[in-house]
Amino acid sequence: MNTLTKIRTPIILINFKTYQEGTGKKALELAKKAENVSLETDVCVAVAPQFTDISPIAHSTSIPVFAQHIDPIKYGSFTGHILAESIKEAGAIGTLINHSERQLKLADIDATIKKTKELNLISIVCANNPSVSAAIAALEPNMTAVEPPELIGTGIPVSKAKPEVVTNTVKLIKQINPKVVVLCGAGITTGKDVAAALKLGTEGVLVASGIVKAKDPYKVLLKFAENIHTH
Amino acid sequence: MNTLTKIRTPIILINFKTYQEGTGKKALELAKKAENVSLETDVCVAVAPQFTDISPIAHSTSIPVFAQHIDPIKYGSFTGHILAESIKEAGAIGTLINHSERQLKLADIDATIKKTKELNLISIVCANNPSVSAAIAALEPNMTAVEPPELIGTGIPVSKAKPEVVTNTVKLIKQINPKVVVLCGAGITTGKDVAAALKLGTEGVLVASGIVKAKDPYKVLLKFAENIHTH
Amino acid sequence: MNTLTKIRTPIILINFKTYQEGTGKKALELAKKAENVSLETDVCVAVAPQFTDISPIAHSTSIPVFAQHIDPIKYGSFTGHILAESIKEAGAIGTLINHSERQLKLADIDATIKKTKELNLISIVCANNPSVSAAIAALEPNMTAVEPPELIGTGIPVSKAKPEVVTNTVKLIKQINPKVVVLCGAGITTGKDVAAALKLGTEGVLVASGIVKAKDPYKVLLKFAENIHTH
Amino acid sequence: MNTLTKIRTPIILINFKTYQEGTGKKALELAKKAENVSLETDVCVAVAPQFTDISPIAHSTSIPVFAQHIDPIKYGSFTGHILAESIKEAGAIGTLINHSERQLKLADIDATIKKTKELNLISIVCANNPSVSAAIAALEPNMTAVEPPELIGTGIPVSKAKPEVVTNTVKLIKQINPKVVVLCGAGITTGKDVAAALKLGTEGVLVASGIVKAKDPYKVLLKFAENIHTH
Repeated sequence: MNTLTKIRTPIILINFKTYQEGTGKKALELAKKAENVSLETDVCVAVAPQFTDISPIAHSTSIPVFAQHIDPIKYGSFTGHILAESIKEAGAIGTLINHSERQLKLADIDATIKKTKELNLISIVCANNPSVSAAIAALEPNMTAVEPPELIGTGIPVSKAKPEVVTNTVKLIKQINPKVVVLCGAGITTGKDVAAALKLGTEGVLVASGIVKAKDPYKVLLKFAENIHTH
Repeated sequence: MNTLTKIRTPIILINFKTYQEGTGKKALELAKKAENVSLETDVCVAVAPQFTDISPIAHSTSIPVFAQHIDPIKYGSFTGHILAESIKEAGAIGTLINHSERQLKLADIDATIKKTKELNLISIVCANNPSVSAAIAALEPNMTAVEPPELIGTGIPVSKAKPEVVTNTVKLIKQINPKVVVLCGAGITTGKDVAAALKLGTEGVLVASGIVKAKDPYKVLLKFAENIHTH
Repeated sequence: MNTLTKIRTPIILINFKTYQEGTGKKALELAKKAENVSLETDVCVAVAPQFTDISPIAHSTSIPVFAQHIDPIKYGSFTGHILAESIKEAGAIGTLINHSERQLKLADIDATIKKTKELNLISIVCANNPSVSAAIAALEPNMTAVEPPELIGTGIPVSKAKPEVVTNTVKLIKQINPKVVVLCGAGITTGKDVAAALKLGTEGVLVASGIVKAKDPYKVLLKFAENIHTH
Repeated sequence: MNTLTKIRTPIILINFKTYQEGTGKKALELAKKAENVSLETDVCVAVAPQFTDISPIAHSTSIPVFAQHIDPIKYGSFTGHILAESIKEAGAIGTLINHSERQLKLADIDATIKKTKELNLISIVCANNPSVSAAIAALEPNMTAVEPPELIGTGIPVSKAKPEVVTNTVKLIKQINPKVVVLCGAGITTGKDVAAALKLGTEGVLVASGIVKAKDPYKVLLKFAENIHTH
């Protein structure tokens, strides 16, 4: 099976960041809950844990695993950097690129996208606004996730606070490169937020604290998945 | 057992960098060879693989594992960064800091050293010359590894090409903080280079391509270990 | 007079970098030679000196002056950074952005372009290849300069070594945003190289060592300008 | 006259940052006010304006001018970077290094200090705490300015809120390198704060908003200078 077939849209991608609730043993437990929701609802749920947790999660679950970042490097002398080949061999099927907390130079975004294509990894490139999303679309990644940084972690959903950011992003991206899948994120904490995001033209959400730091991540994620169904 | 007791000097620390011969399955094989040499010779050998390989190596061998880098962060919103807690939970007992290929701002070196102390991780901070080594000693890490960057990967051993760099480093560090263990690196490929490094006052070596890219890493590493014994 | 009317295409933009021949008093002398060529040939020649030399050159010549870089900041606490307002008040009419030797994160390129628009400064954003050029075009700068980094400073002109880089850049940019003026650079040292660059569809060249480090910069620049005329 | 003789301790160094009140024409006016206070009180006052303002201020006043930052580079291909030679030729007699808003990698602090020595420029290296100050002292700069970043711009003086930061810094620095002049900064807005800083063992203050954003900078600075006298 091609790695690209392991995921489908609409998609819920959970970014574990470096939250305590998403580190080590807890990361594995969280990934298993995500796997359960995915199996029960038949909605595509993927996780982006820390680098050290990719291998344990990929080997103990069937859930699609993404890295949170890769560096624009090849095999060689790059101590302390993130090699695309290493996250692939550990079991990741793709990676976030240019998250607002780990931004890259433009030429490095281009280089990392090209690298993911060579390795048959899925690229999800983050953008902070519509014009940056349009620029990214010109680089031909698989997906773009637009997240206004001022809303990240606030619980104020982008789909409600700034719906025009999402619709403008979708419009601009489709003009430049209609093949790019558009996700949105920032402030998404309820099933309704997910439904609203899809209604605005996206094909999924990038979520972090809304799930990872929820009192009952399984329950909240289940609501997310159900709202994708009823959408 | 305290993690600090898992290592002792003189020490051979092998940095796997992002070499193909030190990635994924090959990283695990290489770590097992290092473990064998350590068990056979009773010389302390440690490895610093990529982040994704820490967990597999720590769980399949008894060799001390170091990370190649950590970021000056705590639990939270730091997508794509390296959390000290995550490398510890994956099985690392310490970390390289400020390798010449992954340099940090001064305040971040200070913060990461303090973080390793809180977590009972061993800090090995890299320096490019004696004055930088002295500055690092003032920050009270466990070890400093001096490596003139122009010799890294050349096969020209620092102990031969620039012995004064090593002796000046040892002298300056001992003046400022005699508790800091001094290692040296760059260009070390033979057992003789290791013996020379110890003779100059160091308590071990940081080696990368000399072992990782050797035709027979086991054989070369065995020579390293034997030269530590006869020293 | 609007600052935008101070320049016209085709344009020769000379980047002084931090060359000794383009620093301080020598920078001013070089700018005066460039001004002479411009006045004699009626070809638009502009200069991009170091920040410290913007004010002296802008006050002693009539040549259009660009900064080599600005930071994505506003008035405030940004010690050591480059404020767009400061380069404007010193006399610059625009700025290079994202030169291969001073690359920016994607969101910062977007922010600096927006800042130049607010201040009526001309933005010239550098790119290393056609796909990056396309991404930049989506951000709506005034100009893009494509320079394959492997040719910079070599004397091997991009127009000869990699003409397809230039023609593909022109094609992609015009698809996304036909208003963006395309320049090219890297390895340009003769009038013929300039003519070739225009023939490939560009509206000017970005040149550095080819002029700044020439034995007789006036003479070489005169050839550049003449080849723009005969084009 | 040697540039080092142009300044003496105790010293008041005013960092103009990128404040609107310290940019362009206003920067020159502010520097003239500082010059007046210095002439009237015979206290050493120096200014650190933006790069573009070094030349105008150095040519229109007699006040010692510092850059806010230099890069660890030499003459060559470093577009957009700050060359020590360029700030010297523009009229600066020294530079801040590693300000908390423009931090450098450790090896680059070492390289820039060495560069200032070659060029007979005065180095003032900033530190965020006592251990970092100690590390800097090992690199042998002319001066160190300790500024707890959490107090910068608050109006809460370090000399009052964290006197132990200042006294510990003085103690550690004098142990490692007694020749290093110690300044302190952060939150200093009144003459009393200056007197307190000197009482804690420093030889001057680094101040920014306390002067630059004061309603009447001349008046506040005069108080600063008078408190140095009565100290």
